[in-house]
Amino acid sequence: MLHFGRDEFEARRDRLILEMGEQKLDAMLLFAQDSMYWLTGYDSFGFCFFQCLVVKADGEMRLLTRSADLRQARHTSILDAIAVWRDRGSAEPVIELRDMLDEMGLLGARIGVEWATHGLTAANGQQVEERLGSFATLKDASSLIPLLRAVKSPAEIDMVREAARLADDAFDAALPLIRPGADEADILAAMQGEILREGGDYPANPFIIGSGRDALLCRYKSGRRELDENDQLTLEWAGVKAQYHAALMRTVIVGRPSDRHLELHAAAREALQAVEATMQPGNSFGDVFDAHAAVMEAHELARHRLSACGYSLGARYAPSWMDMPMFYSGNPVLIEPGMTLFAHMIIMDSDSETAMTLGRTYLTTTAEPEPLSRLPLDLTLA
Amino acid sequence: MLHFGRDEFEARRDRLILEMGEQKLDAMLLFAQDSMYWLTGYDSFGFCFFQCLVVKADGEMRLLTRSADLRQARHTSILDAIAVWRDRGSAEPVIELRDMLDEMGLLGARIGVEWATHGLTAANGQQVEERLGSFATLKDASSLIPLLRAVKSPAEIDMVREAARLADDAFDAALPLIRPGADEADILAAMQGEILREGGDYPANPFIIGSGRDALLCRYKSGRRELDENDQLTLEWAGVKAQYHAALMRTVIVGRPSDRHLELHAAAREALQAVEATMQPGNSFGDVFDAHAAVMEAHELARHRLSACGYSLGARYAPSWMDMPMFYSGNPVLIEPGMTLFAHMIIMDSDSETAMTLGRTYLTTTAEPEPLSRLPLDLTLA
Repeated sequence: MLHFGRDEFEARRDRLILEMGEQKLDAMLLFAQDSMYWLTGYDSFGFCFFQCLVVKADGEMRLLTRSADLRQARHTSILDAIAVWRDRGSAEPVIELRDMLDEMGLLGARIGVEWATHGLTAANGQQVEERLGSFATLKDASSLIPLLRAVKSPAEIDMVREAARLADDAFDAALPLIRPGADEADILAAMQGEILREGGDYPANPFIIGSGRDALLCRYKSGRRELDENDQLTLEWAGVKAQYHAALMRTVIVGRPSDRHLELHAAAREALQAVEATMQPGNSFGDVFDAHAAVMEAHELARHRLSACGYSLGARYAPSWMDMPMFYSGNPVLIEPGMTLFAHMIIMDSDSETAMTLGRTYLTTTAEPEPLSRLPLDLTLA
Repeated sequence: MLHFGRDEFEARRDRLILEMGEQKLDAMLLFAQDSMYWLTGYDSFGFCFFQCLVVKADGEMRLLTRSADLRQARHTSILDAIAVWRDRGSAEPVIELRDMLDEMGLLGARIGVEWATHGLTAANGQQVEERLGSFATLKDASSLIPLLRAVKSPAEIDMVREAARLADDAFDAALPLIRPGADEADILAAMQGEILREGGDYPANPFIIGSGRDALLCRYKSGRRELDENDQLTLEWAGVKAQYHAALMRTVIVGRPSDRHLELHAAAREALQAVEATMQPGNSFGDVFDAHAAVMEAHELARHRLSACGYSLGARYAPSWMDMPMFYSGNPVLIEPGMTLFAHMIIMDSDSETAMTLGRTYLTTTAEPEPLSRLPLDLTLA
């Protein structure tokens, strides 16, 4: 099943080859599943083992993977050249990769490598350096495809819009369940269930759900809790369509919000507005972070915020849906139209154990970004 | 929230320190979230960024992670020494790690490193080699904790039993939905929803669901399908409790099974019985694979099987619940009592586009392994 037309994949390949030309690369070794999916449709968690997609500057592509992924690649991608390495005590898949590169005429070539991806563990990376280091000249090309991927095509934007709709629906499904005595497990099942039932995908990382003092956490953890009479529930979730993510974040107040909740929500909303005003072509990802940080500073909340306030979203695989570029201090990458960016205002006040979060996904344009969620930014009371 | 008592964590730490002594290691750099969780309870997908848990031979432990995981580590683990590195353009977390090791008196020490984990990308691994290679002697210790983890404590076995119950419940929830015209999306939502609703966790990889010709796939992919009048539906899923997995695999026949389905099911069942007879102390993981392969061979199915037939299960993080050791040809690791092992018989006949799978999780004992599922091994007809 291909989620995009052949012409879309050809256009992506052409953008890649152009950039490889700029960087004088004869070939690329892709290890990121996100890159393989973007370029060919190959959709798998097969990157848990060693695999590599080789792309030559003339557009030729060959995949080396394990037996369990041979049919997977055939059924989900435009690839037809697929080789298999076999598990056994003495398996040396990187030597098989070298033989493949040799057959492709790449001895002595200048080859870009995706080193900074969970598709290549440090151990496998050491094998690549050792076995290929004298075969070819290896150049770090980890951010080449991620930066191409950051600007979405119209077909990709359609997918993100659908993902955003699923994310809104998930919240609508959960909201009636959020009340004193409710079990977090029911709320999580309702949100994730809604997205899967509508044909959406698993998220690249588990949804975040935490209440009470765990509302101050912003990662998934095992173990559910029942909500108190007065409580705070932090949720971060994403709708996912054809692996494209659209994330949302909210802290829902059960019962009576404290003054601190109201204060922090007002600050989060003001910070998000400052982010929206900055998330425009001409500004950098660092500028967006600074706009958020300035509002936090003005409200004397600097020590309660995190050191990043969002990131690019797209088709991502585990362990995280966070894509590059990120909004952090000093990031010089420039905002361009057609990016899908998640901005999250997270204020965790450990002193009073008060949590407040507010986040949504935007489509950048030539001016103000378009929010992709229909949910209001008001403090949600349940 | 700790899922185990302090004494359990102390016992694990003692096993680790003993093994570090055997291997003459002054310290370990843990990068696998699975290892961190096992040793301290630290439960996060924070390994998507650089983080490291340092363990000294005297039992001292210090975690270096990002700001978003400071509270996460505090709330979920026994750790109290937690340092934070900050995102910024010039962030050099590995230098901060070196400073931490220096403070811990580890200059010139012999340090074991987990290189073979998705918790350390090749790019971060290069940084570790570059920044620490002359600071200390780095030794590969990737399989040290995984091999300790492979033998479960009674408290862990309780978790796996609960996970196995969730897996059975998920199938019970899905079975009434499997019929001609059913949408795979509803089936997947029912299975995953049941596990989350009962307080279980997300699986370390998405459940596998595929019908028609995609029943021959054994990875998750995006995109759902409706079942035909006569169809085959391959499901691979896991119940997960406190991150401990118990997996199951079935191909369910909708309508009338073909003769080939019946033939392949009989072979799969026979192979699984051969595996059970071999999955006992005294035999190796390679022997278990060979027992499965011999049955496949006898039925002339050698070219339709995969090159591995199962693996250890435990508390695992993305991108895959497959733990080491695996059942593949020549794997010399010996079966011991107290292991939780998943055996899957997978026969994918591309010629006739017929799929058949049969798999379940076992607890090894001093003799025959105990199946942890209550589901029958008969061909499931829906």
